[in-house]
Amino acid sequence: MTTSQILQTPLSETEIEKYFDRLWPICRSISGNGLRSSFHILQELIPLELIEYPTGKEVFDWTIPNEWNISDAYILTPDGEKICDFKKNNLHIVNYSIPFEGEVEWAELSQRFFTIENQPDAIPYITSYYKETWGFCIDHNTLQRLPKTGIYKVVIQSQLAPGSVTVGHCILPGESQQEIVLSTYLCHPSMANNELSGPLCMAFLYQQLAAMPHRKYTYRFIMAPETIGVIAYLSDFGSHMKNNILAGYVMTCCGDEAPYVFKQSKHATGLVERATAHYLKHAQLPHQVIPFAVGGSDERQYCSPGFNLPMGSITRSMYHRYSQYHTSLDNKEFISFKAMTDTITTYLSCCLVMENNVTPTCLVPYGEPRMGKRNLLPSSIEPNDKRRQDIDRMFHLISWSDGTLDLLEIAEKRNESLLLYLPILQKLVDEKLIAI
Amino acid sequence: MTTSQILQTPLSETEIEKYFDRLWPICRSISGNGLRSSFHILQELIPLELIEYPTGKEVFDWTIPNEWNISDAYILTPDGEKICDFKKNNLHIVNYSIPFEGEVEWAELSQRFFTIENQPDAIPYITSYYKETWGFCIDHNTLQRLPKTGIYKVVIQSQLAPGSVTVGHCILPGESQQEIVLSTYLCHPSMANNELSGPLCMAFLYQQLAAMPHRKYTYRFIMAPETIGVIAYLSDFGSHMKNNILAGYVMTCCGDEAPYVFKQSKHATGLVERATAHYLKHAQLPHQVIPFAVGGSDERQYCSPGFNLPMGSITRSMYHRYSQYHTSLDNKEFISFKAMTDTITTYLSCCLVMENNVTPTCLVPYGEPRMGKRNLLPSSIEPNDKRRQDIDRMFHLISWSDGTLDLLEIAEKRNESLLLYLPILQKLVDEKLIAI
Amino acid sequence: MTTSQILQTPLSETEIEKYFDRLWPICRSISGNGLRSSFHILQELIPLELIEYPTGKEVFDWTIPNEWNISDAYILTPDGEKICDFKKNNLHIVNYSIPFEGEVEWAELSQRFFTIENQPDAIPYITSYYKETWGFCIDHNTLQRLPKTGIYKVVIQSQLAPGSVTVGHCILPGESQQEIVLSTYLCHPSMANNELSGPLCMAFLYQQLAAMPHRKYTYRFIMAPETIGVIAYLSDFGSHMKNNILAGYVMTCCGDEAPYVFKQSKHATGLVERATAHYLKHAQLPHQVIPFAVGGSDERQYCSPGFNLPMGSITRSMYHRYSQYHTSLDNKEFISFKAMTDTITTYLSCCLVMENNVTPTCLVPYGEPRMGKRNLLPSSIEPNDKRRQDIDRMFHLISWSDGTLDLLEIAEKRNESLLLYLPILQKLVDEKLIAI
Repeated sequence: MTTSQILQTPLSETEIEKYFDRLWPICRSISGNGLRSSFHILQELIPLELIEYPTGKEVFDWTIPNEWNISDAYILTPDGEKICDFKKNNLHIVNYSIPFEGEVEWAELSQRFFTIENQPDAIPYITSYYKETWGFCIDHNTLQRLPKTGIYKVVIQSQLAPGSVTVGHCILPGESQQEIVLSTYLCHPSMANNELSGPLCMAFLYQQLAAMPHRKYTYRFIMAPETIGVIAYLSDFGSHMKNNILAGYVMTCCGDEAPYVFKQSKHATGLVERATAHYLKHAQLPHQVIPFAVGGSDERQYCSPGFNLPMGSITRSMYHRYSQYHTSLDNKEFISFKAMTDTITTYLSCCLVMENNVTPTCLVPYGEPRMGKRNLLPSSIEPNDKRRQDIDRMFHLISWSDGTLDLLEIAEKRNESLLLYLPILQKLVDEKLIAI
Repeated sequence: MTTSQILQTPLSETEIEKYFDRLWPICRSISGNGLRSSFHILQELIPLELIEYPTGKEVFDWTIPNEWNISDAYILTPDGEKICDFKKNNLHIVNYSIPFEGEVEWAELSQRFFTIENQPDAIPYITSYYKETWGFCIDHNTLQRLPKTGIYKVVIQSQLAPGSVTVGHCILPGESQQEIVLSTYLCHPSMANNELSGPLCMAFLYQQLAAMPHRKYTYRFIMAPETIGVIAYLSDFGSHMKNNILAGYVMTCCGDEAPYVFKQSKHATGLVERATAHYLKHAQLPHQVIPFAVGGSDERQYCSPGFNLPMGSITRSMYHRYSQYHTSLDNKEFISFKAMTDTITTYLSCCLVMENNVTPTCLVPYGEPRMGKRNLLPSSIEPNDKRRQDIDRMFHLISWSDGTLDLLEIAEKRNESLLLYLPILQKLVDEKLIAI
Repeated sequence: MTTSQILQTPLSETEIEKYFDRLWPICRSISGNGLRSSFHILQELIPLELIEYPTGKEVFDWTIPNEWNISDAYILTPDGEKICDFKKNNLHIVNYSIPFEGEVEWAELSQRFFTIENQPDAIPYITSYYKETWGFCIDHNTLQRLPKTGIYKVVIQSQLAPGSVTVGHCILPGESQQEIVLSTYLCHPSMANNELSGPLCMAFLYQQLAAMPHRKYTYRFIMAPETIGVIAYLSDFGSHMKNNILAGYVMTCCGDEAPYVFKQSKHATGLVERATAHYLKHAQLPHQVIPFAVGGSDERQYCSPGFNLPMGSITRSMYHRYSQYHTSLDNKEFISFKAMTDTITTYLSCCLVMENNVTPTCLVPYGEPRMGKRNLLPSSIEPNDKRRQDIDRMFHLISWSDGTLDLLEIAEKRNESLLLYLPILQKLVDEKLIAI
């Protein structure tokens, strides 16, 4: 199948870019109005229902923290230069910094700076969600040239107060209550691959799945602040998910041109692993398959011992594996909107593989069915007949349809894509040679 | 074991060749007198009982077709040249061609010719069992030089009328009702590797197995027209076979010098696979092991989902893998009678491996038995004693005879042939150290 | 962990050498006073209880033989030269030779000599425990230059009379009745790697295990004449051992500098195999892992079909694999006391791996536990924080502690040594995040 056969509705790079540009400047965090306004923009694409988890609520081992909002932050140097201007780059402020306004000696202020010495142009991304403090992130070049003496003026116009952590989710119903779960996070300020690629790919993937004429499975979409948001969500829906999940993916770091990395769930040999590896191999997409590891994103929560959900993750440049990760260099230049349409197509294809992975049973199981009388075969075939390959697939499918193998196993026996077998399977079902 | 130790009765290349020469000129098909007379010749070697499945009988999804007989067929060119003379080569007529006599324009006749452009010397083999039509097969060189205009005279003296499809089978009883099944086809006109090698190897293998002083298993021999004959046979005996089969082989394409190809059944790890791979490896015969694939011969029927019998196939140059396949070039020059005796020895050896694959249990299981007092061991052994290897095998066999492993597994642990262990096993059974 | 962290009490090469020198000259056999006096020396190190199995007692398939003692043996050549002097090298006399004194013609005497032609300096080691005879072992060089005619005077002052076979054992109790079994043999005359390395490593390993502040498992130490001693012991304790054994080792050929060879038990994938392979790999010790084979030492008895105990063997230069084996060249020069301390450390480490191979269960299994509030994690971590690796191990351990995996499996998922996880595990147990 070509990409155009897989897509269910048009998919436009320009449209993705438009939403990227609107979401980019907003200062998101694990709570607050930046997070909410980002959700509101994405709701134009995907009908997320928002849940507010109030400050102080206990969610498993965690407690919902105060809500954080910020309107401005900057520093004036002894020379009056304005640096670390939040309005120019929201990474300058340590995320969740408490409000502060005052004059600070260099000696003290210098302890509050975060920088990356070997990436002197990059502003690092730092948070302090659970320890009340404040600080600034700065590129090393600027830090170097600051006066190392004198009084600096610091302004942080933030609020840390009871409120809530916002989580979005929606359900796309299918024929079965079994669910394919898609989860991504929304909580980082202006970063591209490791923030906006996930929500954008999810929103546009939603549109593809919603456009399908028929869905076998129900799809659950979760967009939540990383860690606390997902833990809160699991405290409500984890038990239902554990009972109903068929497969799932954490969508993250999926916005650049790098080869795919598929990270397995702990199950390692389940449907999500088989379907994803199958698709990536037969679509001849350069990729790597790696086992579950706890470092990463919210698979840490979904795959925690109490849930152990079969959720993998398809990424491009993966967290911790690219130098721009968690810095101001993870920006629009680093990503590609063409790559994002490819990622969406890949996720969609994997869903299609799972949707179509039936376990066929041959209804004429004793000896081969006579195909000629059903017009499924020419009355004589020469050795090198060009139609041989499709005929071979048809006989292969009939022969292995013993009710114990699924289509993935059957297609893999010929080292071919399951998608190649779908039209043949349909023909055999129509002829009542196979039941699914 | 050497070949002479494996053979149970003399096996003569000359004798095989004599039968080959008698069978070669006969025009066989899936029914008819050519088929019957071939059976009658083979009955001199193997006591096949013949079953006639009458035209119109329903066998699973199929119906027994009309019987086909032919006495002559040829074409006279506008110049009066006789071409496509059935009496010179019975491949010239499309097998199952309806009777026809008349004058035909080149324009029409040319649609009735089958040829192989890139093998210009070869006459292809074409059939049309279930669609009533006629046609001729011709080498491309001759086709090229025919006048491309004028009136040709066509003569096909065939009959297509109610009759029957003939199937042969016989049983060689053993101690157990469990069966080793050997199946081959008889239905192609003059072809060597992909026709006569199978029935000839089976007939002479029958003689070897019949000469065995003691058979543990019952042997079932099936010789039938490919596809329809086997489907008809399975409609009668499939249920019994499913209940009683231990292992089996489809004997086909086993007449030339090419390295062996062993095609597994769908079970892939059953006895027939283990025994065959074991024998081919330890006999150091060049070979290849390939998984079940539906394309091929009657394993398609035996391994269909309703039966799924554990039947593999040991071939030499396999169907679809040699350029002479299904052409007039698959002839006496292509095969070798020496190769056929080797093939027969190989099939016989694999049967011997299965016959002897017992699961031994040590009767003195606590600590090692004292071999010295049984005269099974010298009272002192020097480090490099030449007898060490047989002693090692004896201790190895005793140690692993825990009642859970069969002799194939035990021999493979030393990467040795099961056949090497038979005299040692016998000695230990005689000494009441091992029960089988 | 470094060697000094693994050792429970000091381990001195000099001390081992001192015991080696005392044990070396004694002429041991499978019975007799040489065997007893060797036990008495070793009892200074390990509190072995001695069991005497009397001559004539039936033990499984065997009968305890007469006891053998010897005071002198030699030959006088026709020229009056004293050769094969037992007092110079106790290998000269075939072990278990019957008493004999008399004059013997060269022609007869030459049949009584054992030599190794291609190792002309070596005296071979030969026994004849169960066939009453006498003979001498001699280096080929000496044999060559003897007068090939004339009368030789032979003196063998030995005794073969009812007595007993002596076996030593002791138990080091642990919290559980499950046992780790250590077995070695004591029965060869003056040989180093293939005799004294085993009892010496066992005795000093005993001291390490006895010094452990806490033992989870009970340790059983068996020191016995090879074959007959172990069979006798199993006739008493085999049933108890079968019910209680967790893992075990046959300690033999463990005294030289060669890379380790780990021979598996028949179970091949049990705890002893996993723990030993894990330790050898992660300690980066050059080694080879080989499957069980019946040739070797007393694993032949322990792993016989009736017992099939999970006992492997860690050796250095293994029996049959070095040219000095079973000759006078297997002497003090061949071994190394440093190597023996390494071997002891390796055995001890493997025991520690097994002792600590718990199956942890996370007590906060829904989502990740909040580590910050437990002071197990900094409130913010920069991407390249040096503490990352220990934090990763902690999260890894928590995530995989689902009650189905043991620590070996969990550590192997990161391709790391189990020993690295012990301090982290302790911390998590203290914090009540994990139960073991």
